[in-house]
Amino acid sequence: MPFVGLDFGGTAIKGGAVGSGGEIVAERSIPSALERGATDVMDRAAELARSLGASEGGALGVGCAGIFDRARGVLLESPNLSQLAGTCLTGQLGTRLDIDPAHVYLENDANVAAYGEQWLGAARDIADFMILTLGTGVGGGIVLGGSLFTGPAGRAGEIGHVVIEPDGPLCGCGSRGCLETLASATAARRRASERGLPAEDPGNLELLAETARNHAGAERELLFDIGRDLGHGLAYPANLLDLTCFVFAGGFAATLDLLEPGIRAGASERTFGERDLTLLPATLGSSAGWIGAARLALDAGATQVG
Amino acid sequence: MPFVGLDFGGTAIKGGAVGSGGEIVAERSIPSALERGATDVMDRAAELARSLGASEGGALGVGCAGIFDRARGVLLESPNLSQLAGTCLTGQLGTRLDIDPAHVYLENDANVAAYGEQWLGAARDIADFMILTLGTGVGGGIVLGGSLFTGPAGRAGEIGHVVIEPDGPLCGCGSRGCLETLASATAARRRASERGLPAEDPGNLELLAETARNHAGAERELLFDIGRDLGHGLAYPANLLDLTCFVFAGGFAATLDLLEPGIRAGASERTFGERDLTLLPATLGSSAGWIGAARLALDAGATQVG
Repeated sequence: MPFVGLDFGGTAIKGGAVGSGGEIVAERSIPSALERGATDVMDRAAELARSLGASEGGALGVGCAGIFDRARGVLLESPNLSQLAGTCLTGQLGTRLDIDPAHVYLENDANVAAYGEQWLGAARDIADFMILTLGTGVGGGIVLGGSLFTGPAGRAGEIGHVVIEPDGPLCGCGSRGCLETLASATAARRRASERGLPAEDPGNLELLAETARNHAGAERELLFDIGRDLGHGLAYPANLLDLTCFVFAGGFAATLDLLEPGIRAGASERTFGERDLTLLPATLGSSAGWIGAARLALDAGATQVG
Repeated sequence: MPFVGLDFGGTAIKGGAVGSGGEIVAERSIPSALERGATDVMDRAAELARSLGASEGGALGVGCAGIFDRARGVLLESPNLSQLAGTCLTGQLGTRLDIDPAHVYLENDANVAAYGEQWLGAARDIADFMILTLGTGVGGGIVLGGSLFTGPAGRAGEIGHVVIEPDGPLCGCGSRGCLETLASATAARRRASERGLPAEDPGNLELLAETARNHAGAERELLFDIGRDLGHGLAYPANLLDLTCFVFAGGFAATLDLLEPGIRAGASERTFGERDLTLLPATLGSSAGWIGAARLALDAGATQVG
């Protein structure tokens, strides 16, 4: 029986199934259509999981952005999924699928992405690394010794809110100079606009990258500066966890080749001792989340009996 | 048979033995007398271990400040133990004691201190915490899930070199504003001198603490400020590792009661979300190191056969 994972996003619910040998046997997504309300979303998500092979008495992995009550499987807060706040995802999905809610494994979106990349993506065979998702914000997930590390209360990996410039821009979280205020895709767009780059369309990151790739100049300098801030951020997991491998996911990670010189310079400036960093682009794209969720179902070792 | 640990310091080599029930059965220390050279130090350290019960075919734990080649058991660099640089501690001690060098467990001083406090000290029954040793510098050791976490290459826990103020004082490591440039005992002494505190003897930390305890004023404010910097430092393991329990060791930790309000304020300023911190003074004093080292010998599960 395949291992099924779902990944809840604001636009789409993605899902798929992986065989025990690591082969992807199905992959499908449906619109989130959150405006129809939590019950409808749960009905359709359960139907998606069933169509992928989730079955009675089995297990299911679920990735979802937000803050959970892990013991109860309840989504407490989620900027992009506010309509699901207060929903017991494990209970709602478990009941609909005749799966014990204790066998529905709920995990943060960046964490499942890390685990997906470790299982079938960029970090295959890498036991210790951190993933950074560069999007609206900066998310983080940590794998230690080949296992997902979520921390005593499941809140580990918050590298987006590591303060790198105490006098930096105000962050939505209330602190100043959090990594995501300087190096998320949103921040990059703001910084590009502030410098009027690229001249043809300030704030257009694709064009910025293309221009920087074609010739040296202000665009390349800006990406160096943003990379340097990212590198400052990496110095913290390097110093505290001895991590030297970092995987970059999310839209802005397509610019990793241009960010890399700055990342290396910035990390070196704040890391204790010499560390040889490995910087990898994620390879699973938006499938990483459901794949990591499916891996949680596999880990659970619950036999899926039809 | 008891489990024996040694702790190499610049002034003394401390050692002791713990029974399998956690009872301390012997504790002893000898002068390091490093000027007599590595061979002499190894001779006397082995003799100390033997007198504590380390015996042929058994195991031994060793704590030591510095950077190691872990695979080979060689001390590469150590500011306070420079005379031992290049020495294969595991081989030298193992040979003298007829213990397989693979059963001589070498670990960083802050790491063994963390493990000692977890076994028999302040963090008994606490599965996840970080120790900070506030002395000449700031050392760090991390326990996760009840086990010592040293990182993929054994360099985890370097909280002393986490940059908290990018424009702060220059650190010996080359970065600016590392935690230890602001919150070690050395830094506290410097900051007190700069402010001319306490007036009777600027830079005297014992007197500073006594004055601050007796009445509100500039002394108490300085300790709040130093505490706040410490709190800023704690925000990084809180955000990245979800740690909420911190144990403070080293001479300057005797001031924890006065540092605590600043620590809580500083941590709150840079931590993502609300976290209820537990701040504990270490209870094993300078014995924590050898006790943690003895625990490494116990963990190894090697039977000590005489």
